[in-house]
Amino acid sequence: MRIEVLCTGNELLDGSVLDTNAAYLADKTFALGVPVTRKETLPDELPALVGALRTMCERADFVVVSGGLGPTTDDLTLEAAALAAGVELETDPSIVEHLKALFARRGFTYTPNNERQARVPRGGQAILNPFGTAPMVALRIGRADCFLLPGVPREFRGLFDQEVLPRLEAKLAAEPRRVHRAARTLKVFGIGESLLGSAVAELPAKHPHVYFGYRAHAPETHLKLLAEGSIAEEASARLAAAEVDVRPILGDRLFGFDKEELPAIAVAALKATGGTVAMAESCTGGLCASLITSVPGASEVFVSSAVVYQEKAKTQLLGVPTELVAREGAVSAPVTRALAEAARERAGSTFGVAITGWAGPTGGTEADPVGTIYVCLTDGRTAVERRRVYRFDRERVRLFAAYLALDLLRLNARGIQK
Amino acid sequence: MRIEVLCTGNELLDGSVLDTNAAYLADKTFALGVPVTRKETLPDELPALVGALRTMCERADFVVVSGGLGPTTDDLTLEAAALAAGVELETDPSIVEHLKALFARRGFTYTPNNERQARVPRGGQAILNPFGTAPMVALRIGRADCFLLPGVPREFRGLFDQEVLPRLEAKLAAEPRRVHRAARTLKVFGIGESLLGSAVAELPAKHPHVYFGYRAHAPETHLKLLAEGSIAEEASARLAAAEVDVRPILGDRLFGFDKEELPAIAVAALKATGGTVAMAESCTGGLCASLITSVPGASEVFVSSAVVYQEKAKTQLLGVPTELVAREGAVSAPVTRALAEAARERAGSTFGVAITGWAGPTGGTEADPVGTIYVCLTDGRTAVERRRVYRFDRERVRLFAAYLALDLLRLNARGIQK
Repeated sequence: MRIEVLCTGNELLDGSVLDTNAAYLADKTFALGVPVTRKETLPDELPALVGALRTMCERADFVVVSGGLGPTTDDLTLEAAALAAGVELETDPSIVEHLKALFARRGFTYTPNNERQARVPRGGQAILNPFGTAPMVALRIGRADCFLLPGVPREFRGLFDQEVLPRLEAKLAAEPRRVHRAARTLKVFGIGESLLGSAVAELPAKHPHVYFGYRAHAPETHLKLLAEGSIAEEASARLAAAEVDVRPILGDRLFGFDKEELPAIAVAALKATGGTVAMAESCTGGLCASLITSVPGASEVFVSSAVVYQEKAKTQLLGVPTELVAREGAVSAPVTRALAEAARERAGSTFGVAITGWAGPTGGTEADPVGTIYVCLTDGRTAVERRRVYRFDRERVRLFAAYLALDLLRLNARGIQK
Repeated sequence: MRIEVLCTGNELLDGSVLDTNAAYLADKTFALGVPVTRKETLPDELPALVGALRTMCERADFVVVSGGLGPTTDDLTLEAAALAAGVELETDPSIVEHLKALFARRGFTYTPNNERQARVPRGGQAILNPFGTAPMVALRIGRADCFLLPGVPREFRGLFDQEVLPRLEAKLAAEPRRVHRAARTLKVFGIGESLLGSAVAELPAKHPHVYFGYRAHAPETHLKLLAEGSIAEEASARLAAAEVDVRPILGDRLFGFDKEELPAIAVAALKATGGTVAMAESCTGGLCASLITSVPGASEVFVSSAVVYQEKAKTQLLGVPTELVAREGAVSAPVTRALAEAARERAGSTFGVAITGWAGPTGGTEADPVGTIYVCLTDGRTAVERRRVYRFDRERVRLFAAYLALDLLRLNARGIQK
């Protein structure tokens, strides 16, 4: 099964916009065991689009086009598909009616150029778009099942999941000598890609039908397992067997699977125990709080964070004694612990977490160079502390520091583990 | 001048990695007035790479390949280029020596597979890589000047700027009927792409040699101006004339140019006046502080932010009276103002800024539905307030709210403008 993707739009070729649709699609098809075999990105120019579509639809079984379905004269995907298929474009009156009703509901003016979005290459099937305006189109071109999707990421993703993925699954299921696949991504924090690779180095030979893929998604590291079998159960069993061997090696560095994210997992761990947390952040400057509060419903478990960036703020907001800061230094284990305790006490929360450190590019001491991070988690009786030295740039040091705190919270949400 | 880009690597096609190299390159060449005309992304498979390179080098004047220069058998770009050019691959002993010395300096073991990185297609020029290990290669294939660059973004960017861009500029300068270009991106906050387009709708006709491009980079909107002329001075003059007409329309919504970012501009505005700021954030949950503190040197102007997420935290950290919160609601103009004033007083800063709102997906009231944001900036005597209703998802509402606060800070850093 060959899958190709055509991304259209001048904005993808002038450095304005990163294409995320193809990566979204690739991630989904990879999980079915079908990596994308080729991607092309073209400007809004009809001859190039027609030529590329024709070639792709001769070469591939499944072609997805992103973008170019809007109402302006720059939107050329429908024309290109009709020319590549050698058919006429026809206006579908039922779609015109649908668009007019949609505009009326939203209180927008329906202008004639919107009729461009109601055209369908003859023989194609228009599918209404519940995530936006322009319908998507499914049609056969050459030997390929071809899908034309809007380029707006939200619309692309919604329609891809809802309409394209089931058709791809059905096509895979109908393959005469079908290989069945099962995939899972294991996500860890605190171990790099190459160390992870060496840690599980013996396993690929033991599991010949499982692909082991390592990826750095800083600050996370991902291990992708993709198993093949002649029936679905065989693929799942092989995946499960590999995972059984992998998990003891990952240990508690494994925080989640597939699309799970550490902030949401930390929030869920607290919700499960009824715990709450208050924070104090210095070098991360609110990043850790921002990650937690990006999770809908975080307000159930997250009380507050005092972003005590300047030294005096540690006293102003949390009452940490100036003598302690002067004696130990603002970046130190004792000050970090005092901040965690003060944050917890003010908030009356189950846990207090504090982060201090030197994010760089300047600062640091001989003992604690740029990249040094202190994290402390306390429940009022016990405290766990971490010190790390990250040799990255400012942005990454901040991100790793925030993740270190979130990970500590995840690991200790059921009670502090010394 | 046609520029094409070939990105190689399985990781670009299984959803693991977003390709940022092509966008980096496109942004740079666009500024020279030469948009990328085509981009292809291929897995590490030799026949496909050779075929694509041949086609590209027949079609384009300038071809850049990203990736596939490493030491493993998956790294096929040198083989592909040699086959496409119809020449042999030769090992360059001076590069072997260079690599051995490099490994010794870093304390790494030099293994024989590293010799793969010392091969050069006959007639090509290897250029040492000060940003990493694998050298880049420049060679002629078909009618194109072809450049093979490592895929690691830091190495790609460094070598592209240092080695490829000057060669492209020289090639452009040597064009017999050369068109000279000058480009600038104007960045605004608080006006959408289509409104911006209508606001300046009269201008493109008045400036026929200037391209007007509109892009939504939520929460920013960008207007790209690209002027052409027969000499460099003519292009610059046309760009300046268009900008003179555009700026009164943008007014003070214009916050920066090209690569400038709003958080850095807000920090610079405060530095220029010696002002400092303390914040209180509710719905943004630390995002605004995180954006400010992502700017190196922010500690000069940014004292603290109290992330008062739960209602009680507003009292615990900043002493806002519970009666006020109970009477007015946590999301309201009076509470937002009280938070800004308390943040400023505790910190003894020039300004206090507060943000409250309903980020969603749940919450809101009839008067203040989900997406409603209050921002207040005070200097202790005067306060400016904003209320906005953003009909976006949680992530975007938070980002727009944080930008609204940063923009207010930028506009009033020299003293509050009523």
